[in-house]
Amino acid sequence: MQPKTAEASKTIMTDLVLPSETNPINNLFGGELLARMDRAASIAARRHSRRIVVTASVNHVAFNRAIPLGSVVTVEAKVSRAFTTSMEVFLDVWIEDRESGNRDKANEAIYTFVAVDETGKPVTVPELIPETDLEKERFNAALRRKQLALVLAGKMKPHDATELKALFV
Amino acid sequence: MQPKTAEASKTIMTDLVLPSETNPINNLFGGELLARMDRAASIAARRHSRRIVVTASVNHVAFNRAIPLGSVVTVEAKVSRAFTTSMEVFLDVWIEDRESGNRDKANEAIYTFVAVDETGKPVTVPELIPETDLEKERFNAALRRKQLALVLAGKMKPHDATELKALFV
Amino acid sequence: MQPKTAEASKTIMTDLVLPSETNPINNLFGGELLARMDRAASIAARRHSRRIVVTASVNHVAFNRAIPLGSVVTVEAKVSRAFTTSMEVFLDVWIEDRESGNRDKANEAIYTFVAVDETGKPVTVPELIPETDLEKERFNAALRRKQLALVLAGKMKPHDATELKALFV
Amino acid sequence: MQPKTAEASKTIMTDLVLPSETNPINNLFGGELLARMDRAASIAARRHSRRIVVTASVNHVAFNRAIPLGSVVTVEAKVSRAFTTSMEVFLDVWIEDRESGNRDKANEAIYTFVAVDETGKPVTVPELIPETDLEKERFNAALRRKQLALVLAGKMKPHDATELKALFV
Amino acid sequence: MQPKTAEASKTIMTDLVLPSETNPINNLFGGELLARMDRAASIAARRHSRRIVVTASVNHVAFNRAIPLGSVVTVEAKVSRAFTTSMEVFLDVWIEDRESGNRDKANEAIYTFVAVDETGKPVTVPELIPETDLEKERFNAALRRKQLALVLAGKMKPHDATELKALFV
Amino acid sequence: MQPKTAEASKTIMTDLVLPSETNPINNLFGGELLARMDRAASIAARRHSRRIVVTASVNHVAFNRAIPLGSVVTVEAKVSRAFTTSMEVFLDVWIEDRESGNRDKANEAIYTFVAVDETGKPVTVPELIPETDLEKERFNAALRRKQLALVLAGKMKPHDATELKALFV
Repeated sequence: MQPKTAEASKTIMTDLVLPSETNPINNLFGGELLARMDRAASIAARRHSRRIVVTASVNHVAFNRAIPLGSVVTVEAKVSRAFTTSMEVFLDVWIEDRESGNRDKANEAIYTFVAVDETGKPVTVPELIPETDLEKERFNAALRRKQLALVLAGKMKPHDATELKALFV
Repeated sequence: MQPKTAEASKTIMTDLVLPSETNPINNLFGGELLARMDRAASIAARRHSRRIVVTASVNHVAFNRAIPLGSVVTVEAKVSRAFTTSMEVFLDVWIEDRESGNRDKANEAIYTFVAVDETGKPVTVPELIPETDLEKERFNAALRRKQLALVLAGKMKPHDATELKALFV
Repeated sequence: MQPKTAEASKTIMTDLVLPSETNPINNLFGGELLARMDRAASIAARRHSRRIVVTASVNHVAFNRAIPLGSVVTVEAKVSRAFTTSMEVFLDVWIEDRESGNRDKANEAIYTFVAVDETGKPVTVPELIPETDLEKERFNAALRRKQLALVLAGKMKPHDATELKALFV
Repeated sequence: MQPKTAEASKTIMTDLVLPSETNPINNLFGGELLARMDRAASIAARRHSRRIVVTASVNHVAFNRAIPLGSVVTVEAKVSRAFTTSMEVFLDVWIEDRESGNRDKANEAIYTFVAVDETGKPVTVPELIPETDLEKERFNAALRRKQLALVLAGKMKPHDATELKALFV
Repeated sequence: MQPKTAEASKTIMTDLVLPSETNPINNLFGGELLARMDRAASIAARRHSRRIVVTASVNHVAFNRAIPLGSVVTVEAKVSRAFTTSMEVFLDVWIEDRESGNRDKANEAIYTFVAVDETGKPVTVPELIPETDLEKERFNAALRRKQLALVLAGKMKPHDATELKALFV
Repeated sequence: MQPKTAEASKTIMTDLVLPSETNPINNLFGGELLARMDRAASIAARRHSRRIVVTASVNHVAFNRAIPLGSVVTVEAKVSRAFTTSMEVFLDVWIEDRESGNRDKANEAIYTFVAVDETGKPVTVPELIPETDLEKERFNAALRRKQLALVLAGKMKPHDATELKALFV
């Protein structure tokens, strides 16, 4: 299977914050943003694998900035690392000021998808080649995140999580 | 402020998986479940704080089990620990077999909410009192998760994350 | 077929009133509440029968209390009586004040469901055993309501509706 | 206030059954039809009263006929009787066969609305003049239904419900 | 195949403007009105052809009048001309003032549909017979619009578009 | 006011075709695509003008290709020409094959928006500078389309529509 660049999976979803998607203080509901990011990330994972993909997990997502009704929101998703049958997708969410045209980072998120066949059985995916500095940094961190997920799920002993352990000792 | 039990915030949201919420292999979209969990968790946080609450972060969520179209899904949310102005909410998601009536665990998730006033400014919330063994276990783990979030966000040095460090050394 | 308690079918659906569900004076649309109650009641009927269930009728529903945008609404549904292939489901709707935490009854409703097989043909359902006083009261009234429905549909002569007739003579 | 004919409030809502509105056996969800009927009936009540109207109650609704995905459904609503501040609205629901073009009656329903001002206070509405035989029949039955609602709500003694009592004795 | 009148395809869709369908200045989103008109027009085309129909094109639609939240909007659709396998549908959109009861024209639109069989292959449709003056006027203009579409798509030489050319020379 | 390039308004909206958006032969509803294109085009017009924008008209849209359930659809919108207070936006819609990764053109559309202030009054917008050959071609055709709209609306005599007339004589 031919390795692919991160850029090849890049997915851009620009859309408005509609009135039906806001909370009592007129900002985008966290849950709505999670759903949009899931759709964008699944397209990136599908572009990388050319397979049906299903959400496997969502890593720590921080909502640093409220996104008001009527905002233009851009979700950008790129595969950050491929494992045997799974892909980590990194998302950047931007919000755009109507009057100045400035774009500010609203938040980041990391989703993991598994590629499956029509019966739901996992299938292997191509390797990912990071190119830019940011892509490389996210590629390396993806391994630590995978170890952390395995440790928290009790499927890896903390002692064997060498990448992660290095952070603390 | 009077401390409150975890039980007092318990929120149950039982609903069907509707045709508009499914992916190409006829299971509930990850994004839809994330949005439902966000609504249930926000109600639990609101019951604890009696304040407007906004999603601050979503911790690692694993989608261990596909949830097919037509399923009855129960999302149960309880505040697991309160910090100064924020609350960690633990969610358990159950799926029910129509013919046998059996309930299986579909997944778990952890969301964090901040209590705010009408202007969006954070306000303090009551302390949480865990009662059952499971509530106590989640209460204790909440501190490790908070340290982990601070370390990953670069707001705490790994060396100072004493609870977390103990896992690895 | 093993009879079942009313409690065994109990279904709780707690959710927010979202901005897309309100009328021009910012309260929950009657039609939206009717749809939510239909979903909750169908889950209760399904838990009792372990069958596919379809809405057969909606009895008199009174909307006594407006439910404002942003409210937390709890719909509780329990089967109140089982007939050969149909089940009457009684619903109580509660609304919760954010600041005081008090719950007030917003309204009641009664739906009837028929259990069907995959081809849509009615199938028999277990008997229902009422336990509490309220369950017993609703169980008894269900027979009068069934007679009333038959009389209004011209399928029973008023003279034969003995339970109902007793109210008036 | 000038009395108005039933015809003047007639409201026709023809629409498709969309995939997001169907139950597991591919027919229109009862709850979705209840919501559509609520919108159509509220328009009829508004046309009669020229006021904001809110749903007060839903009378017995029978779902006699399943409505499959892709059907063309026509909901017709007309005010059947006006009381001081409330209006009873009668709905007929038709389903249309694509190939033959035949229309069949799918079900009937009766909703009651109250006219209110901007603060939610009830206001008086014009009298309704029935013209056709069907309109007159529904106009007369409306009084029996109102008495029945009052009796069931414990606000009228069965003995005083003269119209209703006549049915049984 | 028996020709049919325009009146036989007439479709009326009256509905409210809901909060989830409005733009930042509280008027109905253009896109939502386009979607409603598509559903109404497809029903008219289906009534004429008694076939599955798919949208082929949308002609110039002018949004002359803003439609505020809470409005009652009536979309009326009638087939204006039938070609071999396609039908032009003319739509008139009315908005109704709650207090005066007056109806104003909000806009007009023209959609074209193709009748297809279950495999998506185009099938012939009955001829359309215009009756009223307005129906005749729209029937005649439909030919010019068809020529214009063919010219703009490069499928007809301007020189051969005799109906259209007569407008300019 | 500083003129702007077409590229500066470029808006990309990539999303899935969800089950709730399909017609009886499992393709994206025309009306849903019209609504998505309206949102994407309004963002492009807003990026050009930095104002609130409202849909003024939709030009001829041809649906050349069915878009099946589960497709990845990319809507690309760019302002093609600015007039005093209005902007023409040109949209290209692409559909992506999951297995091969190939992108095919599904259709094109042209929307016109007006920039308004908070009271809905039109305000002037910057000039548009086309750069590429395709942008220039669309810029020039925009004038013919504007004349055609004016002629069809009876606001310009065919004789004065010099750009348009040249096509036919």
